[in-house]
Amino acid sequence: MRSLWLDAAGRVTTVDQTALPFETRHIVLASRDDCDRAIRTMQVRGAPLIGAVAAYGLALALREDAGDAALSAAWASLLATRPTAVNLRWALDRVRRRVAPLAPPFRAAAAWTEAGVLCNEDIAANRAIGEHALSLWRPLIRPGRPLQILTHCNAGRLATIAYGTALAPVYLAREHGIDVHVWVDETRPRNQGAALTAWELADAGVAHTVIADNAGGLLMQRGQVDAVIVGCDRVTANGDVVNKVGTYLKALAAGDNGVPFHVACPLSTLDRTTPDGASVPIEERAAREVSHITGRTEAGAIVEVRLVPEASAAANPAFDVTPARLVSALITEAGVCAADAAAIAALP
Amino acid sequence: MRSLWLDAAGRVTTVDQTALPFETRHIVLASRDDCDRAIRTMQVRGAPLIGAVAAYGLALALREDAGDAALSAAWASLLATRPTAVNLRWALDRVRRRVAPLAPPFRAAAAWTEAGVLCNEDIAANRAIGEHALSLWRPLIRPGRPLQILTHCNAGRLATIAYGTALAPVYLAREHGIDVHVWVDETRPRNQGAALTAWELADAGVAHTVIADNAGGLLMQRGQVDAVIVGCDRVTANGDVVNKVGTYLKALAAGDNGVPFHVACPLSTLDRTTPDGASVPIEERAAREVSHITGRTEAGAIVEVRLVPEASAAANPAFDVTPARLVSALITEAGVCAADAAAIAALP
Repeated sequence: MRSLWLDAAGRVTTVDQTALPFETRHIVLASRDDCDRAIRTMQVRGAPLIGAVAAYGLALALREDAGDAALSAAWASLLATRPTAVNLRWALDRVRRRVAPLAPPFRAAAAWTEAGVLCNEDIAANRAIGEHALSLWRPLIRPGRPLQILTHCNAGRLATIAYGTALAPVYLAREHGIDVHVWVDETRPRNQGAALTAWELADAGVAHTVIADNAGGLLMQRGQVDAVIVGCDRVTANGDVVNKVGTYLKALAAGDNGVPFHVACPLSTLDRTTPDGASVPIEERAAREVSHITGRTEAGAIVEVRLVPEASAAANPAFDVTPARLVSALITEAGVCAADAAAIAALP
Repeated sequence: MRSLWLDAAGRVTTVDQTALPFETRHIVLASRDDCDRAIRTMQVRGAPLIGAVAAYGLALALREDAGDAALSAAWASLLATRPTAVNLRWALDRVRRRVAPLAPPFRAAAAWTEAGVLCNEDIAANRAIGEHALSLWRPLIRPGRPLQILTHCNAGRLATIAYGTALAPVYLAREHGIDVHVWVDETRPRNQGAALTAWELADAGVAHTVIADNAGGLLMQRGQVDAVIVGCDRVTANGDVVNKVGTYLKALAAGDNGVPFHVACPLSTLDRTTPDGASVPIEERAAREVSHITGRTEAGAIVEVRLVPEASAAANPAFDVTPARLVSALITEAGVCAADAAAIAALP
């Protein structure tokens, strides 16, 4: 259950996420060009996955030409695919640092190995997050009913190499034989819940139910949610959580109903240089993501349809800030951490 | 700006809501059959509007045959169009009570008059709700910026004869020259916000912006909402508000950010026989409303598309309960009322 793997012929293979959830299309990334295109067209998305694809892209480029000029050119080309993705630069720099001191004939193999190491580290970190989260969930298990988890957006394996962050404990629960059911927020706009989280849970055979983003509060009122877990785009020094818009509303409902609200937070998403969430600029994305939606017709065609009258404006702030006071725990690969300044400062 | 009116030829006319928001199609209801069909196919929806159409339907039936048997048959036929709509039965009973004592030759005209009176009473009640709500909004007006209102679902003129309930103060604000802007929650599933509220505000020339249901919390965090107002399906004896699912999440965000949360509540939606929201059964609607959505293609075709993988379940609880403690005020046609048992008991 990986999002990026080597096929029988040793070729880098991934799932074309632009075809999800209606078609599971595997694509082989056989050249730097293929990797460039996959990132640029969002066939792959999610910071760790983008980084890994870029790392393999560099290795593939070096197979063609391992000279200094080619190394620099490949690095620059891959970096330009998603200019704001921090993890992309981190992965590319890491591979370049590893291979630059070597003589050109040794570079391609070393880069390939480093890309593999990077993937394995991601998987290990996600497994660690999963085990730590599961330690918080175990006391919530009630005999005769599944553990009921609610999640927002997609922080699953499709965003990483395997396991994901917020979904890692779900997959580990299954490995441990724990009966688990996931409420999947649709996650308008862009529907990453209905499209990606639902797809990957279905693909893994995990019981789940898609709900409108509006429904989670009611489910918590009725005692149908044992814990909420989400990923995050950034956690600031004081423990505020910047994540997909709507996260804050679920945190409020969790708080109002005594439901634990957990945030899966790889150490790489900690931003200890920003004091609090109010200091983080919120990306305003295209209004078209609100006014339009893409789905599949009965006949099988993928079409985009308009939902909002032509005469109406739409706004699309993409993230919100969940105040630290609403966060029951941050879960990093280094362990469980309170969402406060002292605990965060003490993290590795 | 009415949802139901008599055209130049004196015929009952309305807007076909199944064609909204993309086509504004006026339909004439010239017979009981037309009224039956309009209610049954949801060309008209909203409790007050359904009641008025049924009342006119009875009057139209009596023009054909005003005998006792025909009166009973028309009453039964119209009542069967939406068996659970309380307002439908109320309107039909009212007209029947008015005309039954009369000799048949006088019945049709009396029924027609009664239907008109019923419409005028609805408009007057909504105007009163609007004026009372506006009295709460006036202190929130800040120079140099529009009054910023957020609403969920559609409690506008399309649900009533004119003005609506939650949107009445918006229309009255405009009549009074107050600069007002409305944040319109998309309101998944069924999208009554994006489809109906946005359409009627655009039609009336009121400034508004459609947002994902997830975005309202962020807007309140940023101080971009001066007040939230919603309608309600039922208010129980203790002040709990049963309304379209997602209302509770907005009430939580309003409370967390010191934003007033107002509920437009015609006296007819008060349910003083039910102690609290926990006692109200929540309707579970078709999963298809979550897994599918209808919109308009670039080419102009209205199509339904699937959003959720075939292998995924979907759930669709249609309402939630906003606890009385989160409600800043109930606004009835009789005045502003605290959301507590004593104040509600004292209402007329």
